[in-house]
Amino acid sequence: MESELTRLTLAEASSLVRHKKVSPLELTEACLRGIEESDSQLNAFITVAADEAVMSAGRAGEEIAKGDHRGPLHGIPVAVKDLLDRAGARTTYGSKIFAEHVPSADAAAVERLLKEGAVLLGKLNLHEFAFGATGINAHHGACRNPWDTERITGGSSSGSGAAVAAGQCFAALGTDTGGSIRIPASVCGVAGIKPTYGRVSRRGVLPLSWSLDHVGPLARSVEDCAIMLQAIAGDDPADASSSAESVPDYRAALSGGVRGLRVGVPSEFFFDGADPEVGNAVRAAIDVLSGLGATMHDVSLPHIAQAPAAVTAIMLPEALSIHQQRLAERPGDYGDDVPYRLELGATFTALDYVTSQRFREMIVAEWRRDVFDKVDVLATPATPVTAGRIDKGDLQTTFSLIHNTNPLNLLGIPAISVPCGFTSSGLPIGLQLAGRWWDEATVLRAAHAYERATEWHKRHPPR
Amino acid sequence: MESELTRLTLAEASSLVRHKKVSPLELTEACLRGIEESDSQLNAFITVAADEAVMSAGRAGEEIAKGDHRGPLHGIPVAVKDLLDRAGARTTYGSKIFAEHVPSADAAAVERLLKEGAVLLGKLNLHEFAFGATGINAHHGACRNPWDTERITGGSSSGSGAAVAAGQCFAALGTDTGGSIRIPASVCGVAGIKPTYGRVSRRGVLPLSWSLDHVGPLARSVEDCAIMLQAIAGDDPADASSSAESVPDYRAALSGGVRGLRVGVPSEFFFDGADPEVGNAVRAAIDVLSGLGATMHDVSLPHIAQAPAAVTAIMLPEALSIHQQRLAERPGDYGDDVPYRLELGATFTALDYVTSQRFREMIVAEWRRDVFDKVDVLATPATPVTAGRIDKGDLQTTFSLIHNTNPLNLLGIPAISVPCGFTSSGLPIGLQLAGRWWDEATVLRAAHAYERATEWHKRHPPR
Repeated sequence: MESELTRLTLAEASSLVRHKKVSPLELTEACLRGIEESDSQLNAFITVAADEAVMSAGRAGEEIAKGDHRGPLHGIPVAVKDLLDRAGARTTYGSKIFAEHVPSADAAAVERLLKEGAVLLGKLNLHEFAFGATGINAHHGACRNPWDTERITGGSSSGSGAAVAAGQCFAALGTDTGGSIRIPASVCGVAGIKPTYGRVSRRGVLPLSWSLDHVGPLARSVEDCAIMLQAIAGDDPADASSSAESVPDYRAALSGGVRGLRVGVPSEFFFDGADPEVGNAVRAAIDVLSGLGATMHDVSLPHIAQAPAAVTAIMLPEALSIHQQRLAERPGDYGDDVPYRLELGATFTALDYVTSQRFREMIVAEWRRDVFDKVDVLATPATPVTAGRIDKGDLQTTFSLIHNTNPLNLLGIPAISVPCGFTSSGLPIGLQLAGRWWDEATVLRAAHAYERATEWHKRHPPR
Repeated sequence: MESELTRLTLAEASSLVRHKKVSPLELTEACLRGIEESDSQLNAFITVAADEAVMSAGRAGEEIAKGDHRGPLHGIPVAVKDLLDRAGARTTYGSKIFAEHVPSADAAAVERLLKEGAVLLGKLNLHEFAFGATGINAHHGACRNPWDTERITGGSSSGSGAAVAAGQCFAALGTDTGGSIRIPASVCGVAGIKPTYGRVSRRGVLPLSWSLDHVGPLARSVEDCAIMLQAIAGDDPADASSSAESVPDYRAALSGGVRGLRVGVPSEFFFDGADPEVGNAVRAAIDVLSGLGATMHDVSLPHIAQAPAAVTAIMLPEALSIHQQRLAERPGDYGDDVPYRLELGATFTALDYVTSQRFREMIVAEWRRDVFDKVDVLATPATPVTAGRIDKGDLQTTFSLIHNTNPLNLLGIPAISVPCGFTSSGLPIGLQLAGRWWDEATVLRAAHAYERATEWHKRHPPR
């Protein structure tokens, strides 16, 4: 029974808590036991805050027993990528340099989860400074994929993908600069949404690239993502990049299905180089949406192939600007691949950078005008490939992994990866659905309708 | 009498029009005659639209005769820098390349002036592509200063300063990327305000540097600037950089005086290298404000000296990005100094650029926190020097001219130059007053109180 608890979705667990059929403490202890059993192999956690979690679960249990049920996250064990600050607790940013770093304040997103009564289990593994898409060279060691422990969990939110897939927590926070939420979601067989740029405060999150960084959730269902996003979304006066745009009720927006929803299928780029099993699964997923009443539309994206170069010319110099001084002072305390990427950042001219920012404005205007006038969401593979082997190395896999995710960081539009099947060898495949700026609600609704029709999320990795 | 008309302020002329003591046609014909008499020498206009002006003045006169007086700009002859598009009329951007260019739509600011019933006399001279602070190497020839025709009128809105000072029009529009409104205002002895970054739409204005460009008015009094700014300020959905911040009644805000107003006097930077006559005049102006009841406060600005380098590292690469293709295709059609500046833009790295943008965020936060908590406006010389001789050449004067204006483009705060006296040789001196973001009203109020107390604006250049 206990191990079954950790296979529930967050919404299911939350319902049990609300009806007092399960206590926050039972959920928390089940998660902690799961971590103890599996994490020596999976390596999803950098820090497990067992005592704090048990204490706050106990407190949540008492509150709920007294009839003070604060909402769907109350008493629910979650974990966050170790790029987000936790007041008074070690926050490493995946690095050696910050191995003993203890922030004095919570990241805004952490603060909001705690305010909703969530129980924080600890901090999740990531590529050093979130600067990598595979997680292979993570300073705290590579995560292992619960579906095949010889394989990666994607990056940079490597631990977030692994922990959610393995049932170590009910949901996790990640960050996404070029795909770092959607890639682990895709290759670990969970749901993960990068919200609109500016939707979630980045206060207390070490920046990688301020023009492209996003904070968002990973969870075992689309509904769970909606619950998590609801908690963390919204304006933050202390983060100038966060937006005052109003936040709808994401969970309420899930119902309604996809009848009449216009789904765009890109004619270019997004299916290029996809593993045939991935391409087939995503096309089958599009057929499912069609069967549910959505209408399909071929969409031409004439400039999208230039987006990855623009992302690179923006991301690398910004990252260098953030790390420059530290790298000069403590070069030996960085891992192997981050300094290499940072040094690449020094090769870009100001003209490269501003041209890329102008390209960004151009393509944003183009999609606003020519894409989202015709369709409500776009459907693509989240990653053109499934989880690669850890021993295959980093570089070869990186470019495939980020191919379909990083253009959407440039666009700043919301995009989810939702499980859409498995390869013949049993590896998860992710469907990416992307929507208009600020319209996470439609993205979530489409993904939820698909998930309910297929129930891929009810398949769990072996233990 | 007619020549006296062109020495009125816009507000005075407007009052006569409203009371039907003078017709828009009389004002327009007086201006056109003034242009005819003086512009062969001053070279303020690139294009005079005499027929169109007479027609629209006639129409305005009829409307007003029928009792339909639209407001303070109705029937008032104005002119705009030839960087702003005028539908169906030649718009050169001060260049050879666009010598025959005819835009299909008005710039937003032009459109708004015309909607208020202003009479457009024509397009004003500027440094090629607005990329220079002296106007000496202007493609259409240097403007000559009405106070001393051997001297410059400043740049890049060279014609705007000259035309307003000489009474060729009642007000003008300029643009300001590093001081190009305030410099001509200062050295020509008129008022000119750079509003807050984002306050006035830039639609239909050829960009020089999108991070730093501002549109604003020059006029013979502060009240006239308030009237002009009122017409052009406010959100424009077609310009993403324009702000939805609400626009107050600037003219109503002029009254109230400066009793209790906290005026900051910088301890560093802004008086460095100032011509002694300029420094003395500005310090005397500060004493006048004090005599009017304002309180004086020394203000330390520890990082301001780094601002000009940041402006350069942002402005030059952005300008290069805008001109790169044209420069490659038609190098011979550019003047001498613009290609030199553009090529400098190629020497900056992306790291230089992003570091400068980060510096901008830092100093904005610093001023918000440490400067504008103590004072309401800052008082400085607008230009540390007065109008240099045309034959002295461009480079030597440029750095002096922009020294006090360009840091405020980085900050994005509103700043006005208002006449504050004359050198012993009769050249105008400008007082710069700068205020909080979006608080043009306080800047205008302080400048208006000073102007009323001193009436420097009632002195006119010889004819």
